[in-house]
Amino acid sequence: MPMHLITGGAGFVGVNLARRLLASGERIVVVDDLSRGQRAFLREFDRSPLFSFVQLDCADAEAFINGIRSLDAGSIDEIWHLAANSDIPGGVADPSVDLNRTFMTTFATLVLMRDLAIPVLHFASSSAVYGDLKDAAISELSGPPEPISNYGAMKLASEAQIRAAVESFLKRANIFRFPNVIGLPATHGVLLDLVRKARRTPSGFDVLGDGTQQKIYLHVDDLVDAMLRIRERAAGGYNVFNIGPADEGVTVREIAEAVRDRVAPRATIRFGTGDRGWVGDVPRFRYDIGKLASLGWRPTMDSKAAIKRAVEQVAAQESGT
Amino acid sequence: MPMHLITGGAGFVGVNLARRLLASGERIVVVDDLSRGQRAFLREFDRSPLFSFVQLDCADAEAFINGIRSLDAGSIDEIWHLAANSDIPGGVADPSVDLNRTFMTTFATLVLMRDLAIPVLHFASSSAVYGDLKDAAISELSGPPEPISNYGAMKLASEAQIRAAVESFLKRANIFRFPNVIGLPATHGVLLDLVRKARRTPSGFDVLGDGTQQKIYLHVDDLVDAMLRIRERAAGGYNVFNIGPADEGVTVREIAEAVRDRVAPRATIRFGTGDRGWVGDVPRFRYDIGKLASLGWRPTMDSKAAIKRAVEQVAAQESGT
Repeated sequence: MPMHLITGGAGFVGVNLARRLLASGERIVVVDDLSRGQRAFLREFDRSPLFSFVQLDCADAEAFINGIRSLDAGSIDEIWHLAANSDIPGGVADPSVDLNRTFMTTFATLVLMRDLAIPVLHFASSSAVYGDLKDAAISELSGPPEPISNYGAMKLASEAQIRAAVESFLKRANIFRFPNVIGLPATHGVLLDLVRKARRTPSGFDVLGDGTQQKIYLHVDDLVDAMLRIRERAAGGYNVFNIGPADEGVTVREIAEAVRDRVAPRATIRFGTGDRGWVGDVPRFRYDIGKLASLGWRPTMDSKAAIKRAVEQVAAQESGT
Repeated sequence: MPMHLITGGAGFVGVNLARRLLASGERIVVVDDLSRGQRAFLREFDRSPLFSFVQLDCADAEAFINGIRSLDAGSIDEIWHLAANSDIPGGVADPSVDLNRTFMTTFATLVLMRDLAIPVLHFASSSAVYGDLKDAAISELSGPPEPISNYGAMKLASEAQIRAAVESFLKRANIFRFPNVIGLPATHGVLLDLVRKARRTPSGFDVLGDGTQQKIYLHVDDLVDAMLRIRERAAGGYNVFNIGPADEGVTVREIAEAVRDRVAPRATIRFGTGDRGWVGDVPRFRYDIGKLASLGWRPTMDSKAAIKRAVEQVAAQESGT
């Protein structure tokens, strides 16, 4: 069975991917510096002989290579590069955050792949690479991409490095352009923030912006399913895929109301002003997922259904039940 | 008059830009680490009260800021960011070259601009960001860009950073996508290589590839003219412009023959094999320069005329006349 390495594998998406790969009998090594990911998320895998964990910062190319060599896990066939900054406003305030956590982790991952002759890379990119395009529905050919946050810029910059590496030494790379992703374990994002606020002050809570911001959401179960589908069926050496629902998304108001209804039914929701939460926030877009649909994949939940399920899951997570 | 800072200003393009700005009575600070640029190229400006030079590596954000602060030249209005790796095959062999010289110099330049509230950036990008597109003529909207060299990847990655900075704190950025540029002082590139080979062994010299590689060339006089035109007339906050001739370019064979005719008329030209000189080399493309033409600019020399003039100039440079 193939050996997989997952960078950032103790984070939200990584844990879900690890679970699926292990369930298929594949071997995995998770690498994470545990700056945001949590070792506890991986406890369920500790008894599996197919699972290993290494704590290191994969932005440090030398530490990364030494860590993998010392593991002596045999040759690695595929890397899933998920390690990245996930705090968009944080990266606007301090550009070194996206530089180190997103861009330099990609750089070091590629150095590792060249040095150890690892042929296949899967990369968690983002809809943020497109910036604020005015297209009715954004396809992989929309653009040109003009990211308006450092977060998006360093994702696009990472894609560019990977593209050049495919020309030079990588056999295959799949680029996944994620939308907002929700589910368990919830570690960050608007839904978790709102659930926590509503639990803290059940009488009422604040929402950033005027509530009209509309975004598309994908449940992590659907996301991992799409990633594995692309891995299995995409044919080219360098493949870029939008992953998401095809709908128009849900507004922050709708999310806040769903959270209120589940967590604090008597809460007053207080909205702010403006249709952007922060610099670099893209207020509204739709995905064209025709390319991914051509591989036979469809999400099982649209944005509304994904939010509904995730509100339930996150509320349960936060109440410890 | 405005105060300009030119990174990499002791290099080929920088020297030509500095000369034009000084001739217009504008003040300039040249920053260069002299790793490839030469202090001697700037000697002609040393008597000008409008000119200053600081030797430092602008990939080092702290050294960069301290160097500019200690200069006490007054506030800087515009930066022309030209510092970059210019050795494409070198960047394929060692990815840290384009990382440090191209990408990190851009990162540090943006840190400087934010800290010192410098509002306007001009950036020397490259046709290499497009990769090997099959379009008949490449416009700024062609793509999506898929660079096939680290050189092109780090140029695109730099553009992405700059785009995000415009959203956050920069007032204006002009992105110049250069083609191959030739003229004086010649410091690198196929034309200089061939002139040197022909001078060394006038009986015959080797050419990389089969000679059918065809590229477009712009004379540096036209290039600087276009950069200043864009600076003056481009209207938006973030402007991307192809700069080049609109023709189909000239082949390596034609360049080799022009060099032979001027430098070593009895030389035998020995061609190699393959239509690419190295990994990441794009064999052939044409530019659509309609966007730049709409600002009223046209090159005075097409590729053939630019090569003819530059062969004459470079041959004279190398013979010391």
